[in-house]
Amino acid sequence: MVAQRPTIRPGDPLSAVDSPALLVDLAAFDRNIATMAAFARDRGIRLRAHGKSHKCGAIARLQQAAGAIGLCCQKVSEAEAFIAAGVTDVLVSNEVIDNAKLRRLAHLAGQARIGICVDSLLGLERLAEAAQEAEAPIDVYVEIDVGATRCGVQSDAEALILIERIAAHSRLRYAGIQAYQGQAQHLRQPAQRQAAIDVAIRRVTALRDALSRQQTAIGIVTGAGTGTFYLEAASGVYDEIQPGSYIFMDRDYRDNHWAAEAPRFEHSLTLLTTVISARREYVVVDAGHKAHAIDSGMPAVFGRPDLTYGNPSDEHGVIHCADGGALPELGDRLQLIPGHCDPTVNLHDWLIAHRDGAVVDVWAVEARGALS
Amino acid sequence: MVAQRPTIRPGDPLSAVDSPALLVDLAAFDRNIATMAAFARDRGIRLRAHGKSHKCGAIARLQQAAGAIGLCCQKVSEAEAFIAAGVTDVLVSNEVIDNAKLRRLAHLAGQARIGICVDSLLGLERLAEAAQEAEAPIDVYVEIDVGATRCGVQSDAEALILIERIAAHSRLRYAGIQAYQGQAQHLRQPAQRQAAIDVAIRRVTALRDALSRQQTAIGIVTGAGTGTFYLEAASGVYDEIQPGSYIFMDRDYRDNHWAAEAPRFEHSLTLLTTVISARREYVVVDAGHKAHAIDSGMPAVFGRPDLTYGNPSDEHGVIHCADGGALPELGDRLQLIPGHCDPTVNLHDWLIAHRDGAVVDVWAVEARGALS
Repeated sequence: MVAQRPTIRPGDPLSAVDSPALLVDLAAFDRNIATMAAFARDRGIRLRAHGKSHKCGAIARLQQAAGAIGLCCQKVSEAEAFIAAGVTDVLVSNEVIDNAKLRRLAHLAGQARIGICVDSLLGLERLAEAAQEAEAPIDVYVEIDVGATRCGVQSDAEALILIERIAAHSRLRYAGIQAYQGQAQHLRQPAQRQAAIDVAIRRVTALRDALSRQQTAIGIVTGAGTGTFYLEAASGVYDEIQPGSYIFMDRDYRDNHWAAEAPRFEHSLTLLTTVISARREYVVVDAGHKAHAIDSGMPAVFGRPDLTYGNPSDEHGVIHCADGGALPELGDRLQLIPGHCDPTVNLHDWLIAHRDGAVVDVWAVEARGALS
Repeated sequence: MVAQRPTIRPGDPLSAVDSPALLVDLAAFDRNIATMAAFARDRGIRLRAHGKSHKCGAIARLQQAAGAIGLCCQKVSEAEAFIAAGVTDVLVSNEVIDNAKLRRLAHLAGQARIGICVDSLLGLERLAEAAQEAEAPIDVYVEIDVGATRCGVQSDAEALILIERIAAHSRLRYAGIQAYQGQAQHLRQPAQRQAAIDVAIRRVTALRDALSRQQTAIGIVTGAGTGTFYLEAASGVYDEIQPGSYIFMDRDYRDNHWAAEAPRFEHSLTLLTTVISARREYVVVDAGHKAHAIDSGMPAVFGRPDLTYGNPSDEHGVIHCADGGALPELGDRLQLIPGHCDPTVNLHDWLIAHRDGAVVDVWAVEARGALS
């Protein structure tokens, strides 16, 4: 449909960028990409970077070039966008139940390695039908609930039934287990996250043992986000990690406390905003709900810990200053560290990559709005 | 940039619409449009419908055809989209401080009647410069803070200075006062909203009297949203109302209690979603933060008051059922009434207009993502 177009070009000064706009600090971003790639390489674990965080073909290609085995994403339409952008291995780390969507997924299997999760017989049978029709090979991961109480089967028995059923369909290949503990990612204390992942590990181990008694290999165990990936990687049970937010680091991840062994990532994503109204007690900036997501709390102000953003409305936010500090002035620009990067990026058509005060690239967010 | 394209066409059954997707029930929508148009006509008050709620050219044209004097919006880029769609009178009911944006605004004044709000001398001088450069006539509204503690000048003295300064610029025309009380819209009790609007009315009246002592007419007094417009209309002080959400009615407005004299509007906007995972205690649907906004609370389930939506994540929500009711099944589809319509619409590239179970039209949300 209609979409906004960037007026900014590589080589322009950062000061020429119109606000609100999402900026990516390439120095920090490149270090984040390299840190995670080195971690996976050193641990001998597969990195399947989560594309739901960025929805951007250029970033997916950078992750693949740095050694990621492929991408994962949550929607068939995201997989379509990533494959169009040149990604060669995509796992839809989510359930799909709609026949039309499953046909689109099967169609993709002619262009790239495709995987998907199942947690129901209905979903599995519909997937098999679509794969048969398209004569397309699809990797199937059985999702198990490892404590997040969202998707995934609850018992080993249910998982075993699904795994057995997969074998009955010639176009489907049982690939392994999706064991992602989303609720653990933002538990603030390292020990809390460790306890949650310990539960996940016990759950996977029990299933592995049950499968082993049937002379069946569990295959690839995949899961883990930016808050816990170093725990899954150390478990000896997971083969693949799925972090996404590490490339950007949002305020919610910043608020986690980190264990000594956890690799550190830097804020690279900020929302540029301008002061459009000012009075003695506060100033008003031009970024509200339509420019950033507050489901995980308010953004922080980059480089200005004395400023707080609050009272957000659709197109405005209000900035207060701690006692003694100076408020920004009318026309001044600030950078906000989004509360939650994934749904914030989904509000923008492009990301402005910058270095040393200049625009280096304008990356399309090809899968923005890819909901289906 | 890249945008998703609808696969649905007029004439298709509603059952063929892929989820998640935003649906507009035309029967309810048409009644909402007609009810507000009749209200404004009967009261002899100007209706300037707020385009920030829908960002959609087709809806703007319908509002104009039903008698709206024009549209208002919050961003220059929204004004560009509405004027491209055929709207002939647009007020940017917000402050703009950036020179490049003001030049774009002045450029629009060659194509339509253009108004904008100011609350600072800096904003006014920059606007005057852009208008002078473009040789474009622009209506200027001075925004006053009527209790929302966001934008707007706080004192009559500040307003008088701005109004006097406007007269010094030949391309600018003092048009009136923006007096919008955004915080009043969702006060739950009619008496609370009445009390807040009474403050706004007193504030406007005081300024009108101060201007009158200088033999200056206050001009058009404009403001008011879906929660209070009948109060401003009854005041004898406001000339124009700016409601937006009345066309859709979200869950947040539903939760308001309404005085007997308030016209009633119906839910016309729903988010179609599908059950993708199911267990005994709950089911999981395919609509999360990227498909609807929760800044004003959770959505309701249309036609199923026994179901509650909760635990939202980026692409999922969890549906529970009150004791005794039956949960929907895997593959079933539900319609959610968004918690807040404005930022929800901003997540979607199109709206699917339907009647009697069939798709009637697919409306582009041309100003989706129009942030600048």
